[in-house]
Amino acid sequence: VNEVRIIPVVGMPEVRSGDDVASLIAEVHEGGLEQHDVVVVTQKVVSKAEDRVVSADNRAAVAAAESVRMLRRRGSTIISETRHGFVCANAGVDDSNVEEGLMTLLPVDPDLSARRIRARLAHLSGVDVAVIISDTFGRAWRTGQTDVAIGVAGLEPIVDYRGRPDAFGRTLEATMIAVADEIAGAAEMVMGKSFGIPAAVVRGAPVTFGRGSGQELVRHPLEDLFR
Amino acid sequence: VNEVRIIPVVGMPEVRSGDDVASLIAEVHEGGLEQHDVVVVTQKVVSKAEDRVVSADNRAAVAAAESVRMLRRRGSTIISETRHGFVCANAGVDDSNVEEGLMTLLPVDPDLSARRIRARLAHLSGVDVAVIISDTFGRAWRTGQTDVAIGVAGLEPIVDYRGRPDAFGRTLEATMIAVADEIAGAAEMVMGKSFGIPAAVVRGAPVTFGRGSGQELVRHPLEDLFR
Repeated sequence: VNEVRIIPVVGMPEVRSGDDVASLIAEVHEGGLEQHDVVVVTQKVVSKAEDRVVSADNRAAVAAAESVRMLRRRGSTIISETRHGFVCANAGVDDSNVEEGLMTLLPVDPDLSARRIRARLAHLSGVDVAVIISDTFGRAWRTGQTDVAIGVAGLEPIVDYRGRPDAFGRTLEATMIAVADEIAGAAEMVMGKSFGIPAAVVRGAPVTFGRGSGQELVRHPLEDLFR
Repeated sequence: VNEVRIIPVVGMPEVRSGDDVASLIAEVHEGGLEQHDVVVVTQKVVSKAEDRVVSADNRAAVAAAESVRMLRRRGSTIISETRHGFVCANAGVDDSNVEEGLMTLLPVDPDLSARRIRARLAHLSGVDVAVIISDTFGRAWRTGQTDVAIGVAGLEPIVDYRGRPDAFGRTLEATMIAVADEIAGAAEMVMGKSFGIPAAVVRGAPVTFGRGSGQELVRHPLEDLFR
């Protein structure tokens, strides 16, 4: 087991509609990318590049339109399920870190966004990296928010320990670690909310590279005891 | 914003009742501790050191006894609220990574456990570190589990951005990041479940050192829309 490094991608310009996010990252990231790095990119810049930006008027109506199921409502905040199956506040519609009068919607297909950025990074850097699109979600039962993976490309988002031995040699029965969410949360530490750093490189994470999608992190409503 | 490093503490012996966990960490951790490191320790070794180990017979009854409120039940698994206010499976009662026939209960007061380990590490290493006791919890709405902070000493577990400017200079309204949970999750990556590594050092995390407790991460039941 080796050290894991969380490296901020410093110096990104403001992202605009149509921008090539992968290229912006590859240009500014000091030291370049290495084989099996995990590149975490915030939803905010992906949504801007994909022109998922709308007027900030009537956020409540927009959030409702982005939702397929309402779970809870408190004041002007709704907790709903998005078309992607994410349960979060205001369907991920958010006016922070975007120009005055505007707000961003979630990418239409964050897994596709991740795959596109990954393919482009592979082309630009010549190494095989994984990509996670992250967003900041609240949780039931616990205060505060953490970043989670809403889009994934190039790695298995869940480490399934079921059937593997623990340190005593006995078989683990229920453990499935959402490592992509742990990586997204770790990256949030260096991206912050006020720093203007929309991407980070996670190096040395003990993950399985290969196929995998952010949709695997969505608990099916029928299997969810809290929906 | 600097790089964050997640460094496994390699070579810890099996922890037994009465052991000085801080001393075991300080003895084996290569390179020593540095000022404002965050030392993450798994609940499992803290519970063993504090003799929170019981017979694995009748887990369901023990989990019920450790609970103050039942939320859901599926098969032999309960989702309940513990005395600490944590909502998790089987009240944190768990038979992985412990000797055959035994299981661990959560520490009686994980914040106190964290404060004790922190004080002892300060004494042994001469530097001021923060301590997080981590455990692996499931979540509503998302598959898989992540490590979260059940005990905290020496740092503010929540980074409160409310009132701070975003990258556009506008005031953030609702953002409170549960950075202690993000650190616990990041540390899980190097601790794993099969590696026999019960502690990690997180270096360079942009946190506020000072007072703070794991209880701040517990959403009060009256403010929780999902309890």
